[in-house]
Amino acid sequence: MPIDVNCDMGESFGAWPLGQDAALMPLITSANIACGFHAGDPLVMARTVALAREHGVALGEHPGYPDLQGFGRRYLDMTGAELEAAVLYQIGALAGFAQAAGSTLTHVKPHGALYNRAAGDPAAAEPIARAVRRFSADLILVGLAGSGLLEAGRAAGLRVAAEAFADRAYEADGTLRSRRLPGAIHPDPLTAAEQALSIVRDGQVRAYDGTLMSIQADTLCIHSDTPDAPAYARAVRAALEDAGIAVAPLAPVARA
Amino acid sequence: MPIDVNCDMGESFGAWPLGQDAALMPLITSANIACGFHAGDPLVMARTVALAREHGVALGEHPGYPDLQGFGRRYLDMTGAELEAAVLYQIGALAGFAQAAGSTLTHVKPHGALYNRAAGDPAAAEPIARAVRRFSADLILVGLAGSGLLEAGRAAGLRVAAEAFADRAYEADGTLRSRRLPGAIHPDPLTAAEQALSIVRDGQVRAYDGTLMSIQADTLCIHSDTPDAPAYARAVRAALEDAGIAVAPLAPVARA
Amino acid sequence: MPIDVNCDMGESFGAWPLGQDAALMPLITSANIACGFHAGDPLVMARTVALAREHGVALGEHPGYPDLQGFGRRYLDMTGAELEAAVLYQIGALAGFAQAAGSTLTHVKPHGALYNRAAGDPAAAEPIARAVRRFSADLILVGLAGSGLLEAGRAAGLRVAAEAFADRAYEADGTLRSRRLPGAIHPDPLTAAEQALSIVRDGQVRAYDGTLMSIQADTLCIHSDTPDAPAYARAVRAALEDAGIAVAPLAPVARA
Amino acid sequence: MPIDVNCDMGESFGAWPLGQDAALMPLITSANIACGFHAGDPLVMARTVALAREHGVALGEHPGYPDLQGFGRRYLDMTGAELEAAVLYQIGALAGFAQAAGSTLTHVKPHGALYNRAAGDPAAAEPIARAVRRFSADLILVGLAGSGLLEAGRAAGLRVAAEAFADRAYEADGTLRSRRLPGAIHPDPLTAAEQALSIVRDGQVRAYDGTLMSIQADTLCIHSDTPDAPAYARAVRAALEDAGIAVAPLAPVARA
Repeated sequence: MPIDVNCDMGESFGAWPLGQDAALMPLITSANIACGFHAGDPLVMARTVALAREHGVALGEHPGYPDLQGFGRRYLDMTGAELEAAVLYQIGALAGFAQAAGSTLTHVKPHGALYNRAAGDPAAAEPIARAVRRFSADLILVGLAGSGLLEAGRAAGLRVAAEAFADRAYEADGTLRSRRLPGAIHPDPLTAAEQALSIVRDGQVRAYDGTLMSIQADTLCIHSDTPDAPAYARAVRAALEDAGIAVAPLAPVARA
Repeated sequence: MPIDVNCDMGESFGAWPLGQDAALMPLITSANIACGFHAGDPLVMARTVALAREHGVALGEHPGYPDLQGFGRRYLDMTGAELEAAVLYQIGALAGFAQAAGSTLTHVKPHGALYNRAAGDPAAAEPIARAVRRFSADLILVGLAGSGLLEAGRAAGLRVAAEAFADRAYEADGTLRSRRLPGAIHPDPLTAAEQALSIVRDGQVRAYDGTLMSIQADTLCIHSDTPDAPAYARAVRAALEDAGIAVAPLAPVARA
Repeated sequence: MPIDVNCDMGESFGAWPLGQDAALMPLITSANIACGFHAGDPLVMARTVALAREHGVALGEHPGYPDLQGFGRRYLDMTGAELEAAVLYQIGALAGFAQAAGSTLTHVKPHGALYNRAAGDPAAAEPIARAVRRFSADLILVGLAGSGLLEAGRAAGLRVAAEAFADRAYEADGTLRSRRLPGAIHPDPLTAAEQALSIVRDGQVRAYDGTLMSIQADTLCIHSDTPDAPAYARAVRAALEDAGIAVAPLAPVARA
Repeated sequence: MPIDVNCDMGESFGAWPLGQDAALMPLITSANIACGFHAGDPLVMARTVALAREHGVALGEHPGYPDLQGFGRRYLDMTGAELEAAVLYQIGALAGFAQAAGSTLTHVKPHGALYNRAAGDPAAAEPIARAVRRFSADLILVGLAGSGLLEAGRAAGLRVAAEAFADRAYEADGTLRSRRLPGAIHPDPLTAAEQALSIVRDGQVRAYDGTLMSIQADTLCIHSDTPDAPAYARAVRAALEDAGIAVAPLAPVARA
């Protein structure tokens, strides 16, 4: 069973560069591309889709709350109808760039506060799943392993993908340790690579408090917002490949 | 030869209603739907697409400058690359709602200052045509009859549709009389209906200064931003139908 | 003791008109003016300040969450530092128009979801009070009668004003009955006028379930977003004046 | 006669850092602070005002077109009334932060496309001057040396300051050489320092084509958007100080 390695991409905005897309794109198999609500803009999207196509990386929608100033990291109390329409809008916007580049989207992974909200609140998860399903039954919905978003996706008739994190510490309840607490981010690429291997090969991860938990993951996330992100990605890929684990996108990617 | 009757739709935004979509939709054959850059929002788009589907009205993209506060009526000096990406983004966003509703887009008609700019400036017309063509060779590009936007569309390999106006006065050079001048808007539905008939049946229109000009139109625009818009639409349709001229969209519309 | 009658004003945005400012301004003593975050824009602000000045109406800041699409009616999880800065920004923006018109601001009343949040959550109330106090110790902070926002204001050293509602039903816990429930809005101006009189003259209001509650109010709010708003305002003022109760702003207004 | 050294500051936005404010602030005497229309946000503004206060740097408003995505570098065809209100809004917003920090604004310098437009087009320059004057007769309006913006400011009864550039090449007509052309930016701090000295001490600058032109400047701009900006600032200051020319803000700065 191969594993996917995904990364959030296209998070620059206008005159403000962000992330290391050019360095990371060769190291990943799936890109989650911002669509202008929390980050990104039309020109950034066009460039990010082109870059992903160049490297055979799967194109995924990364919908967020309409909150550019907060980078989509602040909960916004939208109604289900508002949320469904907002997600459908963002999927369409990116799908247009994919289509113009002769490709299609493979997956949708909510961003930031929307990802977190959807993990535990069906009132957020269900409209997201509905929007994805209404756009296409072929899209894969990506969510936190074990979370309610995956349930909502399955209930909507979608294929889902469970996401785990190589570079972040887990709490014993399966959630990610908050970035506000010490030890939230693994301090070096090697620790991240070991956690990746433990998750993918052994189906388990050790929580911050030492608890050993079962976890099942279809895709590993590498955060792009640290200076060392490419080193983490390289370490994770090397560990997986050394263990004979193939790295591949969640679905076949149309060749450019 | 049938004629299309189009109207700008979906121009409400959040808590702010605008236009008379429910009253106008039964009277037209093509809807140009705002996509959140100059008007509209995801929820308004979802509702407008549903309303158009209900009435068998063709779905068209109505891309504008990213200027909500100015309603897309202010020229913005975007580069060609920015403009191409912005138009492609807006097409995709609406196409997602169309796809979710089991339909597709038939046409693209730029809005406001972008429409006017594209009529005369190839640096605006060409990126628009390029964006439309990259999204799909099946989309029809709608522009002012005789304008450079239609040339740019043809040069890009697109089918184009020439637009004329029933409710607005023309200048002798074929442009619309500015709304800042007296006589820009025909004061009653009957005058609009007569102009519509003259354009469609006779291929000519009398300019504000009395000059009789040739004009060839594939679609007639009814403005939606006047209190009487439905009365104008009814008068125009009645005049056309009395003269035995069929009213039909630019391309067949998939049935709901 | 005179009572203030306040109304939210300046909620138009760009091409989208909203409210009945011209009809209401002669009937009120305090205007809470939107500042572009949830409604309003610079031009609307300039016009609203001029209109208020013409009628000797006190100028108040009406800060909201930065959520134009949601009209500031959706909770947004901002940090205290973000909220304090956002409120200070909005106060300054309006104060600039007041200063240019030879006047000053008298009060600050949060809008929509921010108003509701601040009533019960010190994490929202305190940054608001801090922003107001940092701008000027002379500004009056307006909040729901009996709410935590007033406490936060007092603790920050501000003069506060308790707000009651003439046109809305109360629950027995002193909160407003949700607009999603039947009976939330009084169906006629007379009922609103009776409630206004009961609050101001008798210091009590009857809740939706019949409970008679004590209430102390310095200012009465007339909602501007109903077609009948001016009729409500007239009825409320007539009832107060018939009972010999003066209607006056919270602080003297500089004459134009 | 002392000379002012100014720099655009506070151009970060939300999660996107930009510029080197901490490194530059100790080296300059005036900060032009973005106000959320083209860059900056309330939190960034609060921090930038605090940083400027710490270093005794004069606070200036840096109003731009409402075009975050384009960083205010794209001309937007606003009416005079829109422009006047937009500038007044931005001045007020920053003045609120200044007041909260116990200080006041000293100057206003338009940003990007607005600066360039105002240099040559009275329809842009006059509304800007009007907005500044309406806010306060004590504000200094900063514009390109020899430009129409300074004339408009003087005609409005304002004190004006002529700006020159140390790090940019001039054309023989007194405008700045376009950034799209080679040689627009001086390749090293020493050249910038020499140009600064020539302007301030000798009142002349050599254009790109070799022409020697007269120039009179009250303030020198150091661009903050190059990696080497602090080195340029240091070189310019050193050259001026070596020549015995004092560096000081345009007006006395209230001490923190």
